[in-house]
Amino acid sequence: MLVDGQPYRTIWPHGDSVRIIDQRHLPFRFVIAELRSVSDTATAIREMQVRGAGLIGAAAAWGMWFAARESGGDESSLRRLAETLFATRPTAVNLRWAIDRQLAAIQSAADPVEAAHASAMAIAEEDAQACRQIGEHGLPLIRAIAETKHDGKPVQILTHCNAGWLAFVDYGSATAPIYAAHDSGIPVHVWVDETRPRNQGARLTAWELSRHGVPHTVIPDNAGGHLMQHGLVDLVITGSDRTTRTGDVANKIGTYLKALAAKDNHVPFYVALPSSTFDWTARNGITEIPIEQRSGEEVRWLDGEDAQGEIIAIRLFEEHSPAVNYAFDVTPNRLVTGLITERGQCPATEEGILQLFPECRAGRANSGT
Amino acid sequence: MLVDGQPYRTIWPHGDSVRIIDQRHLPFRFVIAELRSVSDTATAIREMQVRGAGLIGAAAAWGMWFAARESGGDESSLRRLAETLFATRPTAVNLRWAIDRQLAAIQSAADPVEAAHASAMAIAEEDAQACRQIGEHGLPLIRAIAETKHDGKPVQILTHCNAGWLAFVDYGSATAPIYAAHDSGIPVHVWVDETRPRNQGARLTAWELSRHGVPHTVIPDNAGGHLMQHGLVDLVITGSDRTTRTGDVANKIGTYLKALAAKDNHVPFYVALPSSTFDWTARNGITEIPIEQRSGEEVRWLDGEDAQGEIIAIRLFEEHSPAVNYAFDVTPNRLVTGLITERGQCPATEEGILQLFPECRAGRANSGT
Repeated sequence: MLVDGQPYRTIWPHGDSVRIIDQRHLPFRFVIAELRSVSDTATAIREMQVRGAGLIGAAAAWGMWFAARESGGDESSLRRLAETLFATRPTAVNLRWAIDRQLAAIQSAADPVEAAHASAMAIAEEDAQACRQIGEHGLPLIRAIAETKHDGKPVQILTHCNAGWLAFVDYGSATAPIYAAHDSGIPVHVWVDETRPRNQGARLTAWELSRHGVPHTVIPDNAGGHLMQHGLVDLVITGSDRTTRTGDVANKIGTYLKALAAKDNHVPFYVALPSSTFDWTARNGITEIPIEQRSGEEVRWLDGEDAQGEIIAIRLFEEHSPAVNYAFDVTPNRLVTGLITERGQCPATEEGILQLFPECRAGRANSGT
Repeated sequence: MLVDGQPYRTIWPHGDSVRIIDQRHLPFRFVIAELRSVSDTATAIREMQVRGAGLIGAAAAWGMWFAARESGGDESSLRRLAETLFATRPTAVNLRWAIDRQLAAIQSAADPVEAAHASAMAIAEEDAQACRQIGEHGLPLIRAIAETKHDGKPVQILTHCNAGWLAFVDYGSATAPIYAAHDSGIPVHVWVDETRPRNQGARLTAWELSRHGVPHTVIPDNAGGHLMQHGLVDLVITGSDRTTRTGDVANKIGTYLKALAAKDNHVPFYVALPSSTFDWTARNGITEIPIEQRSGEEVRWLDGEDAQGEIIAIRLFEEHSPAVNYAFDVTPNRLVTGLITERGQCPATEEGILQLFPECRAGRANSGT
């Protein structure tokens, strides 16, 4: 997507290294960082220089290119490096998916390093194309709501966290239908949950939308229920970090609360995801999906720009008070109106999902699209 | 309650003026401020030097003492000053209640200033006593849960915002049963919602609980649903800024989302309030209770302590992105397990409430307790 008129993706190869937008500095600074090793890549994922379902997968794919180089053809060393990458973010299923796909590509290749490079390129490109297709498949939803409005008022869409192009290689998942609608002239307005504790909504989604010219308003995470009670939300679209084959959705902590409010107020609640985000082995999201617990210091400390434009971290409450920080929660499929994937929309049920992905009926296999 | 071993209330007369704990500086600084006029009092309420249902009422009562002095017996001037106070926080029903009670006291008195002083003293004292009684009536709830735990584990209570002693004259509403349980040796642990955008949970409730030695953990507002899904919350208790005669509860924005999660996970959801918080004229909370909209800058900017211990305000997102800031939402009575008042517990229904407050069956009259 465009940043100040320049087209960017979130990650791209550059000679012997890989470049990323270092998202920790957004929206205040636009910083490009360079990754040169598995260790750099693991740090970038763990410290959230890169984050978001698709981008974590793409970063891990490029990390496996470094792993192929660093292991020098030694199988056990390759597996150790893969484990280093896998340990960074336990909830993100795209991480495992990308690493497994790279392991298979590397192990069957005459030139493992070249194979890993080609496969990373393919994973990144497929991610971008899947998001573009999610946009196409979600657009009719927004258009249908727009057609019920006879006063030219915008379609009001609420989103949580950042499932925008910054969370993928390009386009985004939850934002793809929004960008598609905006670009085709449908008036939209986005309620952007700030998404504590790391504020990816206020920092990343708002930045993306403003750079693309999409009308939006930042709200505290507490506000969505009130807006829905008063008819100010037509549609909720979020992303997902892992979705079971039965349609239970792990996503940023707080998503479940918005899904409950949507249900209580008859607001459609959609989840947009590329098929790489499905965990075909899991049936019960609440009991089977591991939820990453991050440091409570991410709740206690927050950074932003002071009145002089300097980036400062402040402590929000005292050291006497402990804090906990669960990164994700699970929204049961009964609260999800539908899923939007690169193959089309489907109900959040095992049968609905398998009709779109019949090759996954048997169980463990990943769709590979 | 105690602050570093000293007993304090949140507001008290001091010669010709009134002293308050200036809550904007907590938890980092303990600052006592002095109010000398209606204008000082209105500013203190509007700028949230004092906040919370009961304390707003007590502050308005003391403000009316200033109004009696400043109006010099002129009726229309008195009413204008009362309006100045009333305009500060439109959702808080205790504000109107305290002002109306003071107007009646002043108008029927031989010495209006002395009458206003005596009535303000009474309002503050009644507020403290009502909260103490809420503690007594809520304690059996917590004790009953403790008795179901055979492993000595604490009763896990989630609360939103600050309905602690800082929100009243003393004891608090939601916290009163918690303090009563803790003081009688029942192990409790409190999940403290940080409560964006003004973080009254992280700043005030956590400070109160830590000063009193009650175990607690600060969580982002997004986390409560996840905790309830995993059996980590036994009970939710919140306060209220206005409750209809039918039991719809206006409280800090985000309360409704926690009530939905409590319902979805079979967790009891109680609201603790003194009867001065009932709006006996309102039947439908969602359509009849005005919801205060505050500046979006309260969402964009946040202050805290930097690494050097200086209080610094930081901007969380760009000026390109607008923000809105609804201060309260309404939890429909169907989501409320029960109310805890100074007269006892009751169901959140008109009949349940009127059985405790039979003198309010007729309609408009306030219970005056």
